[in-house]
Amino acid sequence: MEIEAKRWGFRGKQELNAASASTVRGYLNQIIARINKDNSSSVIRLGHGDPSHFPSFKTTPAAEDAIVDALRSAKHNCYAPSAGVLPARRAIADYLNRDLPCKLSPDDVYLTSGCTQAIEVAINVLSRPGANILLPRPGFPYYESCSAYNHLEVRHYDLLPEKGWEVDLDGVESIADENTVALVIINPGNPCGNVFSYEQLHKVAETARKLGILVISDEAYDNLAFGSTRYVPMRVLGSTVPVLTLGSISKRWIVPGWRLGWIVTSDPNGILKKSGVIDSIAEFLNISSDPATFIQAATPQILENTKEDFFSKIISTLRECADICYNRIEEIPSLTCPKKPEGSMFVMVKLNLSMLEDINDDMDFCLKLAEEESVIVLPEKQRINGCRDSSEIEELASHYFCY
Amino acid sequence: MEIEAKRWGFRGKQELNAASASTVRGYLNQIIARINKDNSSSVIRLGHGDPSHFPSFKTTPAAEDAIVDALRSAKHNCYAPSAGVLPARRAIADYLNRDLPCKLSPDDVYLTSGCTQAIEVAINVLSRPGANILLPRPGFPYYESCSAYNHLEVRHYDLLPEKGWEVDLDGVESIADENTVALVIINPGNPCGNVFSYEQLHKVAETARKLGILVISDEAYDNLAFGSTRYVPMRVLGSTVPVLTLGSISKRWIVPGWRLGWIVTSDPNGILKKSGVIDSIAEFLNISSDPATFIQAATPQILENTKEDFFSKIISTLRECADICYNRIEEIPSLTCPKKPEGSMFVMVKLNLSMLEDINDDMDFCLKLAEEESVIVLPEKQRINGCRDSSEIEELASHYFCY
Ligand SMILES: Cc1ncc(COP(=O)(O)O)c(C=O)c1O
Ligand SMILES: Cc1ncc(COP(=O)(O)O)c(C=O)c1O
Repeated sequence: MEIEAKRWGFRGKQELNAASASTVRGYLNQIIARINKDNSSSVIRLGHGDPSHFPSFKTTPAAEDAIVDALRSAKHNCYAPSAGVLPARRAIADYLNRDLPCKLSPDDVYLTSGCTQAIEVAINVLSRPGANILLPRPGFPYYESCSAYNHLEVRHYDLLPEKGWEVDLDGVESIADENTVALVIINPGNPCGNVFSYEQLHKVAETARKLGILVISDEAYDNLAFGSTRYVPMRVLGSTVPVLTLGSISKRWIVPGWRLGWIVTSDPNGILKKSGVIDSIAEFLNISSDPATFIQAATPQILENTKEDFFSKIISTLRECADICYNRIEEIPSLTCPKKPEGSMFVMVKLNLSMLEDINDDMDFCLKLAEEESVIVLPEKQRINGCRDSSEIEELASHYFCY
Repeated sequence: MEIEAKRWGFRGKQELNAASASTVRGYLNQIIARINKDNSSSVIRLGHGDPSHFPSFKTTPAAEDAIVDALRSAKHNCYAPSAGVLPARRAIADYLNRDLPCKLSPDDVYLTSGCTQAIEVAINVLSRPGANILLPRPGFPYYESCSAYNHLEVRHYDLLPEKGWEVDLDGVESIADENTVALVIINPGNPCGNVFSYEQLHKVAETARKLGILVISDEAYDNLAFGSTRYVPMRVLGSTVPVLTLGSISKRWIVPGWRLGWIVTSDPNGILKKSGVIDSIAEFLNISSDPATFIQAATPQILENTKEDFFSKIISTLRECADICYNRIEEIPSLTCPKKPEGSMFVMVKLNLSMLEDINDDMDFCLKLAEEESVIVLPEKQRINGCRDSSEIEELASHYFCY
């Protein structure tokens, strides 16, 4: 070439590196790399939040039929409105209204590409220079990634193992300040397998109200509760504090690959409207990609035609798995489980490092477990910014198993 | 409530307002609002880039079958890898390799949620404080929205109507500086309906190389060329300048609602790799939502099983529509068409305001046309940041019709 570029004026983005490094996928890849190739058929994959890989977790034919019908109608190959097609918004409002006093309307519902995009929307809309957000520890690392990318400062509050993973509300009050915009709860919990009681949610709402912050309730595992605590959605407390509910069909219908989720506003006092948050949600979705239109269009039929029987079978399978996991862990001297799981698909396990030879920390444990036993579990503390202060690290190095 | 919030510490995001205001959807809504409700059955919708609404543009049954097969297999309800499932990446590489000397590999292909998300990826990855990007005028406003939201400064170069919408390369050189990261071309063009010749692309590549910037080639309308200029993908010039090709099945298969697109790197000299752009693309996709897995999985079958016959019918329909549009416009004294369209689905029309009574500008024309004739077309100049300098506005107030 005769014409030479003196230099190329573009480059990659350092901050993406940090943001994407803390995803579950990143750790998983490192751990999977340790699996002995000869054993690859007998690998026990407990580190993955994707139940659809397991034969006992298959979606209902009713959901598949709904998709095929929507596709074959040839009416839904077009672009969708940016908030989602109206019948789907209405169906999701109705679905979430089942056994709820305060009634959602279709206008409160925005369709997203999985609960993942719902998180992206919430974080984008709330981020502004100097603002901070309160995230649970342990939690779901995508919140950290997304906040890092949007320059939203993360402050962690603890979930207390000795109190069955209750929110440390004193901690919340001590870390919040006038630049705090929201508090995130995950209910049922990932990775703790806990379900928040109504009383606990009530206290969370009052604390958030006092602090003037909104509550983001990640209910990706909505209704996946199988213990003694009943699952109650945070939005029942919408008149105390504005609530953004994030959800999807990924977990309950075991179709994470379908990428259908929602962000729902519960705002009976019009606070989200007045503060411009609702407009910003609509505007953000205006410049984002949508879930596939025919999947949106299938949503009413999916929600209506799924039999109670399908859900109850999943619930009892989850309960059975939780029991097996919990009981076996209790038999292993170096492992303890602070609380028997009551919801979602995970269990947190505490590692007693003093009883283990040649294990430096939780990541080390995970890597060696993969290498020696072909069992994949995930570490807790390696989650960037997500670890407790260093003195505590070795004590609460924990793991979660997908069962 | 006893506990009162002193103030609520969150608010919406002003910049989303500006970013989302300039979308096509925004104008369309304003214009549609002028349609007389009594005439709503006879509305002629020429303002919409979505051919799937028109009976003569239906997708092929082969594509639908591919989706149904992938869904019914029940193997693709799981999450996909963040770059997309390998068979789809391979199939897209093969598809794009048809009649091309330099061969793409599956590793060069990243699946996105439509070409929309491919644009989002490119803009996000390249934006950094102080950087700027060169966009065509007229162009596709999503680039402006996405750049605004990412604080990437937009500089417009002109497409020259008197030269059949060629790139004003002198203009490009005069507005680029050491902070310019990329130049965007849309080929076949939206909204000008032009197709760039190989000679033109070659000059674009040499200019970009000289300036040290990469070329983003939006080929959402790839292969939709029906005039005398042959469609050539920009990436054939990848050894002169690194190229990001953005594309999707939305237009050629008439399924914009399926949300399957791609971003493809052509980088035989390893410049994108070395500059970190490729890593950043992978990292951005790591923290973004994906296209539905079963749609990804259906891609190989969609690309292989679609008959040439389907494409050629679409092409001849487009050619016929372009002829009708062009000829009718030529008959109207106050309208002229700088160049007969050769590709995509649009035509740009110049409005001679001196010959029109009571019309202030292009938006005014669009609003009155909707009101009086129930015909929907779109304005050009209202695109925020997209207008020529004010003295020229009234002269080249233009429109595009989707036919
Ligand atoms: C707590 C939590 N929120 C959100 C998500 C993402 O959900 P989706 O698959 O619907 O994007 C997950 C997935 O594992 C999750 O565990
Ligand atoms: C030039 C251009 N690029 C990108 C897109 C978006 O494509 P997709 O529907 O695949 O997201 C469009 C849609 O109209 C377009 O015209």
